[in-house]
Amino acid sequence: MYKDEFMLEALELAKQAYALGEVPVGAVIVKDNKIIARSFNKRETNKNALLHAETDAVYKACEALNSWRLCGCDLYVTLEPCAMCAGAIVNARISNVYFGAYDKTAGCCGSVVNLFEIKGNYRPKYFGGLLEDDCSLLLSEFFKNKRIKEITVLN
Amino acid sequence: MYKDEFMLEALELAKQAYALGEVPVGAVIVKDNKIIARSFNKRETNKNALLHAETDAVYKACEALNSWRLCGCDLYVTLEPCAMCAGAIVNARISNVYFGAYDKTAGCCGSVVNLFEIKGNYRPKYFGGLLEDDCSLLLSEFFKNKRIKEITVLN
Repeated sequence: MYKDEFMLEALELAKQAYALGEVPVGAVIVKDNKIIARSFNKRETNKNALLHAETDAVYKACEALNSWRLCGCDLYVTLEPCAMCAGAIVNARISNVYFGAYDKTAGCCGSVVNLFEIKGNYRPKYFGGLLEDDCSLLLSEFFKNKRIKEITVLN
Repeated sequence: MYKDEFMLEALELAKQAYALGEVPVGAVIVKDNKIIARSFNKRETNKNALLHAETDAVYKACEALNSWRLCGCDLYVTLEPCAMCAGAIVNARISNVYFGAYDKTAGCCGSVVNLFEIKGNYRPKYFGGLLEDDCSLLLSEFFKNKRIKEITVLN
């Protein structure tokens, strides 16, 4: 069952990404009402394309449970997962996905394509737009500040 | 430019996966005519859903180049990438993808969906069916033997 407290924790993690100059996305994985993995986007910091919040959280959750199957686990993430992350969620058999902001350019849970509705493949339940205003605001502030910095550098 | 020798190396890696009881998929990433990352599927061995051949190879290539951008790199893999792996390839900006066998149930480079043709997203060049007979044979042998073992256990 969805709980705001877990999305708020994902938002706190997204703010840590923001502080590092990363696109602010945070994620937690919950099992039996407890957080078993936390992460935020660290692609730039770690110079690695694999290190989105969701993939890193799935990796850590598999380590925590010593299993590639995360059945009974829920993932909370502040932004609609991209193809890589949606695919990782499917591969790990996560039960429920709760995401905040929609991503109209790269979101793969309905916005661009829907990787959670492929016939014959594992299909998690998913719910978008949770704490959407907070999640979207953090992202739009980040991109606004990034543009201001870029314009300052150009001038 | 595609070279058989790199697909043959990916096939050798797939055989290492087979020997461990893993679905036999191998991958290499090539830059300037040299292999900079090698991997094979180790999902069962490492009990981690992230450890497909391609994602692990992308991770290692990012480490090798100290960059999340793998522009100018080619990925060779014995099986058509799934959603997670195709997404990782897009996120890492890999230039060319060469795959062997088609995956009619989960392949995301045209078989089920095509994540390499999404408008507005990065689109790598991709070529399927390379050394297809060898790549397919290894996979079909693996699944045939798996079924024989399962039947033996049931009896």
